[in-house]
Order: sequence, then C-alpha cells, then structure tokens
Amino acid sequence: MRWDRERLRLLDQRRLPAEVLWVDCVDAREVADAIHAMIVRGAPAIAIAAAYGMALAARRHDNLPPQARRKALIAAGETLAAARPTAVNLAHVLERFVPLAKGGASAEAFAELAEAIHAEDIAINRRLAESGAALLVPGSRILTHCNTGPLATGGIGTAFGVIAAAWQAGRIEEPCFTETRPWLQGSRLTAWEFSQAGIPATLTTEAAAAGRALRGGFDALVVGADRIAANGDVANKIGTAPLAALTRRGGGRVMVVAPSATVDAALANGSTLEIETRDGEEVWRTTGAASVPAGIDIANPVFDVTPAAEVDWIVTENGIVSPAKGERADALVPRFHVKIKC
Amino acid sequence: MRWDRERLRLLDQRRLPAEVLWVDCVDAREVADAIHAMIVRGAPAIAIAAAYGMALAARRHDNLPPQARRKALIAAGETLAAARPTAVNLAHVLERFVPLAKGGASAEAFAELAEAIHAEDIAINRRLAESGAALLVPGSRILTHCNTGPLATGGIGTAFGVIAAAWQAGRIEEPCFTETRPWLQGSRLTAWEFSQAGIPATLTTEAAAAGRALRGGFDALVVGADRIAANGDVANKIGTAPLAALTRRGGGRVMVVAPSATVDAALANGSTLEIETRDGEEVWRTTGAASVPAGIDIANPVFDVTPAAEVDWIVTENGIVSPAKGERADALVPRFHVKIKC
Repeated sequence: MRWDRERLRLLDQRRLPAEVLWVDCVDAREVADAIHAMIVRGAPAIAIAAAYGMALAARRHDNLPPQARRKALIAAGETLAAARPTAVNLAHVLERFVPLAKGGASAEAFAELAEAIHAEDIAINRRLAESGAALLVPGSRILTHCNTGPLATGGIGTAFGVIAAAWQAGRIEEPCFTETRPWLQGSRLTAWEFSQAGIPATLTTEAAAAGRALRGGFDALVVGADRIAANGDVANKIGTAPLAALTRRGGGRVMVVAPSATVDAALANGSTLEIETRDGEEVWRTTGAASVPAGIDIANPVFDVTPAAEVDWIVTENGIVSPAKGERADALVPRFHVKIKC
Repeated sequence: MRWDRERLRLLDQRRLPAEVLWVDCVDAREVADAIHAMIVRGAPAIAIAAAYGMALAARRHDNLPPQARRKALIAAGETLAAARPTAVNLAHVLERFVPLAKGGASAEAFAELAEAIHAEDIAINRRLAESGAALLVPGSRILTHCNTGPLATGGIGTAFGVIAAAWQAGRIEEPCFTETRPWLQGSRLTAWEFSQAGIPATLTTEAAAAGRALRGGFDALVVGADRIAANGDVANKIGTAPLAALTRRGGGRVMVVAPSATVDAALANGSTLEIETRDGEEVWRTTGAASVPAGIDIANPVFDVTPAAEVDWIVTENGIVSPAKGERADALVPRFHVKIKC
C-alpha cells in the first residue's frame, strides 16, 4: 500500500503471484470498489485503505459548502463501510472520521488521521509479533491459514508477524501454510510473503494440513481473525474452526492474533453472526469448465466461527486472554467504548 | 470404459467436465500409461482397465512361442502393477491372470477373464449399494469425498452407489460432496456423475465441508477406500481422516464402501503403509503463476489413513463389519487367500 496524499496505490492481490500490478485510487468510491473486488483484502489492510479513502474524499470535497461537504463525507464513509460488511475494524476506523466530518476539519487533518491509523497498525503489528512469538516454545511446528502478513495489514502482519518473529528468534521449524480454497490466499499471497521475508515454508492443501493436525503434527495453529465476539468466539476464514479442533485434538494449541479493534464487544458470541457467502463461481472456476453441470449447487461460505473453548490464546496489542480457560475477549477493549454510526 | 476385444476406450478423466474425450489403448503399455497419467483412476476402475490390459497383451503376443509369450505376459503384468502402486485390488486382479499366463491360455480366455472381472465389479457395486443404503436412516444428510461413481468403478460405484441407491429410496436429503484438492475429483468428476444420475447435490470446499461436519451438519460421511488394513484402518484420498474425525465429533457416522478385494489381509494396520506423494506442481498449478516463489516447498501427500476406531462401517460384497466396535476387516476376505507374485 503506497500513499502520497493525492492517491492510494494498492498492490492488486487478485493478480499475485503471477503479476505485480499496482492499482491507483483517487477517491473513496475507487477505494470501496477495490475493497469489494478484493484488490485489497485482509481486515487490517481494508481498514487502512478505507482511512485513506476518507482522506481522498476530504480532498475531493474540499471546496464544497460546509453542509454539503459533511453530507458528502458521511456518504463516502457509508460507501466504504458497505464494501466488506464482516470486517468489524473497518467500521471502527471509519467511526474515527465522524468527528472530523462533523467538525469541518481540513483535508490535511483527514490525511493526518489516516496516516496515524496506518502508523498505529504498524506499531500494533510489532507488539502482536513480540507477544505471540513469546508464547511459542522453541522447536514449534506451526500451521497458519489464509493470509495475514504485509499484504493483509499495514505492517508485518498479525499471525504472519508472530510466525516471522518466532522464526527470527529460532523458535520454529519450517512453518506450514494452507492454500486456502477457494480464493487461494495461502498459495497466492502467503507463499509470496514467506518468500519475500526469506522464511522457508511449506504449502499444502487444507486436507493435508487437517490430516497432519489430527496426527499431532502441529504444536500450534496461528491465525488472524475477522471478528472476535465478546466471549472469545472467533470468526475467521472458512476452514479455521475445523483446523483448530483438529490441532487441539492432536495436542497442539490455537493462537488467534489480531488488533483489539477486531473484538466486537457488542457481539455476545458467534452464534448470531451472519456468515458472508460468496458466489459459487469462485469454487467452480478452478475446474476450467464453462458451466456447472445441471442440478449441482455450490455452497461457498467465506467464514466460520471457532468456538471460544477451542481458542487457547487471543493475542492483541492490549494483552492476551485465554478463552479456552474461560477468559473473555471483551476484557481486551476499553470499557466504555461508545459506538457511533457513521 | 468401453471394450471391444481389440481396444479399450477410456474416458479421459483429466479433461472432464470441460471436455468428453475418449482415449484408445491397444496394448498393456498404453493401459499402464493411462493409469499412471490418471486418464483412468479410482481403485476398481484401474483394476478393470488393467484386466483389459492383460487381455490386450495376450492378443498382441498370441503368435509368440510359448516360453516367450509367458515371459511377455508376466512383463505386461508387472508394468500394469507398477502403474499405481497403492491400489491393492490392481495387484489382486493381475494375480488372477498368472495361471492363464503360465498355462498358455488363449487370447480369448484372457478376454473372457477380463470381461468376467468387469461383470463381477458391476455385480459387487450393486450389492454394495443395497447394503450401504440400508444402513442410512431416512432423512440423512450425507457428505462424500473424492470420486467413487461410474467413472471410478466398472458399475454404479462404491460410496457413490450407496448414495445413489439411498437417494432413489428417499433416504437422504441433498447429498454434499467436496471439490477434493488438488486434483478436483469432486468438482470435476463427482459433480458430473451426480448430474448424469439426476441427483441434485451440493459442491463445497473441503474447508467448508469440515466446518459443517464439526457443527453436526452431516449424519454420515460415505467414502470409498484405496486399501483397507486387516484391523480396519482405511487408506483413502487425503482429507478422509480429518473429515471422518470431524463427522464423528459432530455426532455422525463414517461408512467406508469397497469391494472386499480392497482389504489387504497381509497389512496388519495402517501404520506401516507408505503414503504416495505426488508432485507439488499439482497443488501449485491452480495459482496460475509460472513458478513457485523461492524458498517455498509444497507437500502433496495423496492418501491418509483413517484409524479403525473412526470407521463405523466397512461395507463389502461379503458383508459389513464395524471396526469402531473392534470388528476386524480381514474377517471379510477368504481365510486362506494365497498371494502369488505376478
């Protein structure tokens, strides 16, 4: 992600690793479209891109009369918020622009807040990496799922940051990661991140990873989160819940690494969370055939919920809790968090 | 699979469902190549193709002097056996041609034995389908994995035959099947089989199926087998073992459907079974990128072993055992089975 106050440049994650292509966004609508089209993805990266989207909106509407400008900025926030509804920190970040929009703050103030949000994420990533790596015993065999590194965040990453820090500290054997069907975040993006970081790592299908987890082949599953309920239930990429159950059955631990903004204190538990489903075409595409045979339906849920009882650690920049031991995730967020609709 | 005593026509399973392409084989070497290249796959289908390969070899070498003919036929058997080493019934079927080769039987006798082996498989499939379907309670929600229907066998299939029979008998809700990475046997082949059979079915990724299994979403996992150990450990497509563990944890049952020839009475349990691994390129191909990033390794095991304790039923044409209750799989094969090297 590159930012020069006039445009936001996003590395097109749909093309990686075949092609390194940058996409320029000059207003909030283009940023929202990029989020929706998954040019940029990963909960923290989406939130940062949206913050820059607000800065671009403020710049674009700088010459409007105050009332119209406020209205245009609120509309920009709503457009950005709607681009990926499951990502709770996207909403959190956008809320931080509401006082600026209402107060008629300058375009510079918007840009500075967006830059501060990005800098915060980098600092949070560093803290997550240190805290999480310290929990891993030397010689750990690690599995990760989906993509949580520099492509998904503003900094070194969440789960990926923990693995990279633990690798540097000599605490882990070669890490293993899943391809992550159907979008292949693992083979397309995480492989690239591991390679760029100079960390030898092993790619495998979800099925092979699950089998190895069941046989006790992993000491820890280390993953990010899209949303964490107050009780510690974790919504994350489809496949996380079964990998967590199998890792624990094989004697390993489950670590969820996320900024505290991922905790949705208003969500009591994961049971009421609506799971985003995407077009079955994403699953079908890989077959190379034009059309799905008659009578065949495709189910393509994007997330699943790992029950709190299967989560050994939630690592945030505000501390660590163990939902498996009955500790609550909402202990990690400020008590009197006020929710303002953007 | 089509046979006219001069050639064996195989439906190229690598091209399905995008293209329906038939490949002709006129000698044993071509059949062995087709098995190795996975033009034909599925343990029972491989064994039948190999039987026709022996018939083609007998035809080709009909004019050789007896000693040379015997030698050529034994060599053909060895070539066929080596094409897919994990499939135990391939070896079983080839053994049946040894007495013919040694006794100098006519090319017609070879063809008749191959045709009888094919007819046996059709009859066995029918028996498996009836026995297995009777075990499913009406209203069952079924998951299957990989491909076990007409494309993988000589008849209606093993696990697929059970599901088709149970569907006809009104015992199951819409069946669910996995895409089966990396080769996509599910989305490419099983989808086609369900569609051809007029059975509405739902395709999903392994990750989504695993999550649903964990949440109690399946009453039964119904799968085939590549090899069954004497104690009831089952080697089958990678991903079977974790899906079995999760289905049982969710309160469902695990049914393995296979001809009794799949039982390897000489294999005490699955722990000593060597698991075939294939080129990581099979996993990587889907990304669309030319080369794997530097430092990234790909692990691509093809099978896993579901422990006997997780297998509720093994359904064969010789009867049903419950390894989860301590019943042995070698009870399903004739006691004094003599193993002859081909």
